[in-house]
Amino acid sequence: MTNLKMSKLAGAATLGSLALMLPAFGQDAAPAEEAVVFASAVDVAYIFNTLLFLIGGFLVMWMAAGFACLEMGLVRSKNVSMQGLKNIALYAIAGIMFWLTGYSLMYVGVDGGFMGSFGPYNFEAVGGGDASAGYSVASDWFFQMVFCATTASIVSGTLAERIKLWPFLIFTVVLTGILYPITGSWQWGGGWLSEMGFSDFAGSTLVHSVGGWAALAGALILGARKGKYGADGSVTPMPGSSIPLATLGMFILWLGWFGFNGASQLAMGTVSDVTDISRIFANTNLAAAAGAVSALILVQIIYKKVDVTMVINGALAGLVSITAEPLAPSVPAALLIGAVGGVIVVFAVPLLDKLKIDDVVGAIPVHLLAGIWGTFITPLSGSGNYGTQIIGIVAIGAFTMIASGIVWFILKSTMGIRVSEEDEALGLDKAEVGIEAYPEF
Amino acid sequence: MTNLKMSKLAGAATLGSLALMLPAFGQDAAPAEEAVVFASAVDVAYIFNTLLFLIGGFLVMWMAAGFACLEMGLVRSKNVSMQGLKNIALYAIAGIMFWLTGYSLMYVGVDGGFMGSFGPYNFEAVGGGDASAGYSVASDWFFQMVFCATTASIVSGTLAERIKLWPFLIFTVVLTGILYPITGSWQWGGGWLSEMGFSDFAGSTLVHSVGGWAALAGALILGARKGKYGADGSVTPMPGSSIPLATLGMFILWLGWFGFNGASQLAMGTVSDVTDISRIFANTNLAAAAGAVSALILVQIIYKKVDVTMVINGALAGLVSITAEPLAPSVPAALLIGAVGGVIVVFAVPLLDKLKIDDVVGAIPVHLLAGIWGTFITPLSGSGNYGTQIIGIVAIGAFTMIASGIVWFILKSTMGIRVSEEDEALGLDKAEVGIEAYPEF
Amino acid sequence: MTNLKMSKLAGAATLGSLALMLPAFGQDAAPAEEAVVFASAVDVAYIFNTLLFLIGGFLVMWMAAGFACLEMGLVRSKNVSMQGLKNIALYAIAGIMFWLTGYSLMYVGVDGGFMGSFGPYNFEAVGGGDASAGYSVASDWFFQMVFCATTASIVSGTLAERIKLWPFLIFTVVLTGILYPITGSWQWGGGWLSEMGFSDFAGSTLVHSVGGWAALAGALILGARKGKYGADGSVTPMPGSSIPLATLGMFILWLGWFGFNGASQLAMGTVSDVTDISRIFANTNLAAAAGAVSALILVQIIYKKVDVTMVINGALAGLVSITAEPLAPSVPAALLIGAVGGVIVVFAVPLLDKLKIDDVVGAIPVHLLAGIWGTFITPLSGSGNYGTQIIGIVAIGAFTMIASGIVWFILKSTMGIRVSEEDEALGLDKAEVGIEAYPEF
Repeated sequence: MTNLKMSKLAGAATLGSLALMLPAFGQDAAPAEEAVVFASAVDVAYIFNTLLFLIGGFLVMWMAAGFACLEMGLVRSKNVSMQGLKNIALYAIAGIMFWLTGYSLMYVGVDGGFMGSFGPYNFEAVGGGDASAGYSVASDWFFQMVFCATTASIVSGTLAERIKLWPFLIFTVVLTGILYPITGSWQWGGGWLSEMGFSDFAGSTLVHSVGGWAALAGALILGARKGKYGADGSVTPMPGSSIPLATLGMFILWLGWFGFNGASQLAMGTVSDVTDISRIFANTNLAAAAGAVSALILVQIIYKKVDVTMVINGALAGLVSITAEPLAPSVPAALLIGAVGGVIVVFAVPLLDKLKIDDVVGAIPVHLLAGIWGTFITPLSGSGNYGTQIIGIVAIGAFTMIASGIVWFILKSTMGIRVSEEDEALGLDKAEVGIEAYPEF
Repeated sequence: MTNLKMSKLAGAATLGSLALMLPAFGQDAAPAEEAVVFASAVDVAYIFNTLLFLIGGFLVMWMAAGFACLEMGLVRSKNVSMQGLKNIALYAIAGIMFWLTGYSLMYVGVDGGFMGSFGPYNFEAVGGGDASAGYSVASDWFFQMVFCATTASIVSGTLAERIKLWPFLIFTVVLTGILYPITGSWQWGGGWLSEMGFSDFAGSTLVHSVGGWAALAGALILGARKGKYGADGSVTPMPGSSIPLATLGMFILWLGWFGFNGASQLAMGTVSDVTDISRIFANTNLAAAAGAVSALILVQIIYKKVDVTMVINGALAGLVSITAEPLAPSVPAALLIGAVGGVIVVFAVPLLDKLKIDDVVGAIPVHLLAGIWGTFITPLSGSGNYGTQIIGIVAIGAFTMIASGIVWFILKSTMGIRVSEEDEALGLDKAEVGIEAYPEF
Repeated sequence: MTNLKMSKLAGAATLGSLALMLPAFGQDAAPAEEAVVFASAVDVAYIFNTLLFLIGGFLVMWMAAGFACLEMGLVRSKNVSMQGLKNIALYAIAGIMFWLTGYSLMYVGVDGGFMGSFGPYNFEAVGGGDASAGYSVASDWFFQMVFCATTASIVSGTLAERIKLWPFLIFTVVLTGILYPITGSWQWGGGWLSEMGFSDFAGSTLVHSVGGWAALAGALILGARKGKYGADGSVTPMPGSSIPLATLGMFILWLGWFGFNGASQLAMGTVSDVTDISRIFANTNLAAAAGAVSALILVQIIYKKVDVTMVINGALAGLVSITAEPLAPSVPAALLIGAVGGVIVVFAVPLLDKLKIDDVVGAIPVHLLAGIWGTFITPLSGSGNYGTQIIGIVAIGAFTMIASGIVWFILKSTMGIRVSEEDEALGLDKAEVGIEAYPEF
């Protein structure tokens, strides 16, 4: 069998013999026909580490689809196309911005400070890669980029059904290109918070709470949907258009979270690293399960019926809660941390309604509040200390609320961020997208 | 570029150098600047094996979403939210129970007997992992746990549209925490069946038939949906609410099955293991294809139209059929085994209706009957012998039918397992969930 | 803990020690308790390469679900079940045909010529695998098979809503078993085009344009849907039934494309290969993002509303465009290549309507035109030269158009390819499938 693919592979294998295959011992001791070449330890570790970023990266990329399904399922049918569009666009924008400014701002030259440097980032040349670096920077970029996109996904859910498309996209540009990378640099970029000993393994605060704070700032400035809150304190339910879509979205997110938390181990080239990743998979799954079950039981007790959206958000809150420290907790601790996440959702969703903060999909309880909880509780499992955790939570919250608030305010004052009352009543699909989600129904 | 993630990675690499990197030969023979370290064979095999469990595990976890979509698509719209809820809840419960009792009962101290020991299972400590063990036990737990969850998913489809939520969940607790692990211990735990030479590579019987038997016991005790079967022998079709959801569910299951069968090779650290996994991928895909095509042709011949749900279940039956032995068959044998699975579905679905056994999604033909077929036929490819295969099929079937029947009977006698006629007519979404799946349609 | 799975694993590990673990140096120099075995470089590379094909393969397999969702979402509700059925059936058929004839025809004995040999292909025996081959042929078969299936998926979208089931399936048999493998052999099989220096890294032409040409030939012979084009030149919009399904389909395709392009590196066993794969992931994501954003901006400018289906197809066109060379381009070049893909979609969709070529889902702009663009532009990044690229584009286009045209014509002249006007008006779901997609709505 002769074919180009094989020739190409053979070529690669030749490169491989230069890079990976090394003579094991002196030729004089080993006759040619018995010569065996061994794999270089540094090379093998590099390949495993990079593979971890690629697998983790595509799993977290898949979460963009999960958010899209969850949000399309939880908005009313007249706004579904818009929600799909926003989720596609924000993922695309996050990718471009995290290349253009985000990665450098978050990771290059932070050095204990408050941000990195500006400018696009260069990947390795074709055929490149430096084994002693431990992993490919292009794979790391991909993995970190999808985290950045996750942050933007959180915002789109809360502000659904009344925000205009273009101001939302401009906010996404700023969030993914500047705001998220700045607070990210404080910890994962080696900035001041990391020097203080703050602990946030996979981003309960750096990703989920940041998305939640940005969403909260937007919700406060944007206001609630028309008719949601009566002057008399009444709350009008606006049920989502498709529970199957929301359910599927949750399963996608649950799946993607194995990449989110597991690959945040950042290395897979040793026995202990891959074992830790396995432990993270188990803890992540169990915390999500506990969040779902605690919400399930609680809503049955309180409401006598089991609102499936609460169970969906309970599972997600369990996932967010364990994200700050998915490795260290024992299984009972992981179950407890996740279960509290589910409890938070059940109580916070109606509380937000009381405060007339209109969060269409429940992203603030799930991502902001469970994110705070998960970050606060890491010292229980020996990571960080409560004081530093609180400093980190407050500092990142304050920065993101203020900076997001300023951006939202500028957008409101210039181009406006809210659709007209007529457009809101008509639905964004007809008003801004021109394509209904389900035109025949 | 200085950042915490890199420091962390550097730390990991240091650990790595202790574990993975070993001096290749004597320092005296190799000057310092030329010293090369080679990768430890045991460490590399451990990482590959563990990675196989993690990848296989997340693919099988994804099957939970596949079952959810398939079942939400095949129930009527008034019961869709409930079906989504049950699938989320059963996956969560399976995870908790398989940690609390399941894994130990199935794998610890079975020793040729009938069950293991009771109690939760401990994973490796943080930074742990013993290279000589061959793989991380946490990764194995994760992989085995998702198999356990699959069993529960099968039950929920058959009993849809009339079972109450809470008795179903209690049954799930017993099934995933006790029943599935006991029969699992007989074979995969090294129990009496494995000592007899029973053969079930990835679980045609241990997973799929067990789910099918538990569903059958439930269906018999629960009874058919109101109006399904007339006194005159007529059968009223109750078509599913969404063929796209069912189609998507099938594709998810097909994808997940590569993990189900492929990672059941249990090792990827050698040339022959990864080659066997490749062979399993090919055979699994071809058996599914043959099941779909045989069902497609057969329904065209018999009914002159191609019922897409038959083709969906034909593909799934092909997958179940090959699961007992996906490695040994030649391609023609794999095609035959899968094709017979498709045929079974086409004939068994109307047969069950004649017997007035109401299986909403066709899970009994797909998982129980094709599971029996696949297990029975493994000797064709040289695995096991027909006598032992029959003993295994009958023993596991008898145990699961009787034990499940007892549990269902107790639940029926105490809290009741069936919703009221009014609730059934109204739909479970309004009656028990309080949230309609598609409130605007 | 004694269990069969562990025994089995232990067995595998023993095999492993034969294959992978080799004594590092003379026993005399190393006392038994200190003997360390190192991993064989050839074995480790083989495992990584094969794993790449398996991961890449399941990601591309998943694209079959993406096409199914995209197409089910973009047809009208009366034809949705049929579209799901066709996508299941074509994936199944592609698998069988690519084993029966396709793989040999494409890869065996092409030797600079125009096709390989006929006949089914044999995988390695159980427990087999030859480390010096570089990868498992079964894994390569799986990976190449899913590419073949992709080609058929493209055709089903264009011809939706009026083609009969069985002629479409017969065409699929010919396309996946004969036509696709022949043109594939010209390049990836080491045929005449590869000897000329044609460049098509992952198949902008070999997969996407081939599917597009076959679809175009079919669309011309089949004709437009009734009522689509008025005698007065008017075009009647026939909006798709579900934007969420189409959105989800796009995200699935985007995810699968990391396998499509990334694993087309064909090797992962060296530092440079895995680094190149990382670079491909980044470029693939950025080109898709640029395609989505360019379509987004352009439709806003032209139509003052943002048609979400244009953005979906813009992202897909970005992906197709970068597929001919996802490795070599710099990031700005990748962004440009993808952005032009998005522009092509925005202008080509209405152009096709002017030409009265009825392409239901926009597959011809996305796969054929963007595929031509991507293939033409590879010399910009240093791969191939413009003359040879044009020769390859034209040769493969001419062969596929003529051969597909002949097959479509024969099918039309014998069994007929188009449903009756009554069936078209009624919808294919009632007419041919007998199952409506959404019977309750």
